[in-house]
Amino acid sequence: MGYATLNLENPVFRQFIGYAALVLVKTCLMSSITAYYRITRKAFINEEDTASFGKKLQVVLNNPQVERVRRCHLNDLENVIPFVLLGLLYVATGPNQAAASLHFRIFTISRYIHTFVYLLVVPQPARALAFAAGLFVNISMVYSILSQASF
Amino acid sequence: MGYATLNLENPVFRQFIGYAALVLVKTCLMSSITAYYRITRKAFINEEDTASFGKKLQVVLNNPQVERVRRCHLNDLENVIPFVLLGLLYVATGPNQAAASLHFRIFTISRYIHTFVYLLVVPQPARALAFAAGLFVNISMVYSILSQASF
Amino acid sequence: MGYATLNLENPVFRQFIGYAALVLVKTCLMSSITAYYRITRKAFINEEDTASFGKKLQVVLNNPQVERVRRCHLNDLENVIPFVLLGLLYVATGPNQAAASLHFRIFTISRYIHTFVYLLVVPQPARALAFAAGLFVNISMVYSILSQASF
Repeated sequence: MGYATLNLENPVFRQFIGYAALVLVKTCLMSSITAYYRITRKAFINEEDTASFGKKLQVVLNNPQVERVRRCHLNDLENVIPFVLLGLLYVATGPNQAAASLHFRIFTISRYIHTFVYLLVVPQPARALAFAAGLFVNISMVYSILSQASF
Repeated sequence: MGYATLNLENPVFRQFIGYAALVLVKTCLMSSITAYYRITRKAFINEEDTASFGKKLQVVLNNPQVERVRRCHLNDLENVIPFVLLGLLYVATGPNQAAASLHFRIFTISRYIHTFVYLLVVPQPARALAFAAGLFVNISMVYSILSQASF
Repeated sequence: MGYATLNLENPVFRQFIGYAALVLVKTCLMSSITAYYRITRKAFINEEDTASFGKKLQVVLNNPQVERVRRCHLNDLENVIPFVLLGLLYVATGPNQAAASLHFRIFTISRYIHTFVYLLVVPQPARALAFAAGLFVNISMVYSILSQASF
């Protein structure tokens, strides 16, 4: 038998690309939510943006709703991007398919929950738990990767 | 015939690595532009940085030119990094080469335009259009990936 | 002979996944350091977080220690993520193993130094040098990638 490869012949890779796409598209769409709140709250941060809405608006640096979406987006960058990178390397280590599925599913579900909880201001510890589940998946994949690496 | 592989034998991969390197190096160099403005505007955010310029400067949190570069850099992280990750998975799905080239070229050109427009304060909707073109490429690649994934 | 592949059969890839995991796990753990300072300094940024600590605290936007950790974390996102992406493509270009090891080791060591220097407020130019070493590795890998790419 050979080594696990990063192509569609490998059923773990075929699963991974689906979950990776689901969390990445969510991350990309956070920009649209930010834009929605900037426009409806008239909270633009660049002068050229205020100018394009007809009347002369002030630049707004700290609309609470906009800042909340931006924190959620940054949290995605801090967690989703490492997940996709670690996930790719983890797939290459040839994990058991059931274990790999579990990692990908827990991460994807926890990050969607994290976003809803963050944007809808659900009381803690909802957000902390969703965050911790994602972090746990990433750390677990790091462990698998390091056990196969050479230095 | 076999599956599309992530190595140089695959002409789509060979193209992808070039465009990915071009947008990633632009993202990395944004740090240098930030440093240039911090030094020329004497707008340092860490005390240890102000100390290294001889006279005791104040920490400056909100120089408008520095903040503009930093917003542009963050926007790159939010869009360029997902592009490279999605692009890698998209290449593995074995896309038509002409379609793939088009995706990579539109994204690369739109992000370079986005940076120039942002830093030179070109009036809207220039920045919004450049941003939308990049987002559209990413969403299109998500669609291709999901159509080949298993869950 | 064939092309360099992204699987464990390739010794350069086997090294790469180890260094990539080391720098990614460091980046992921920055969140925990931020959380530690937010809790010990009672500097929460979300209302739902202040509420979960019993007494009604004010939201704190600018605790200096928390903001320092967050800048360090963002700097990781700006440099570590491009390193892992560029590193993956660089491995696919089939670099000399000794040269590749040197790239991965310099980057990994420089980023760990960067974090300690940033968090412990070591005087400049320590942080600038650690940052520059990492950027240099990334630019060098971009050069190798572009020399093998087709457009």
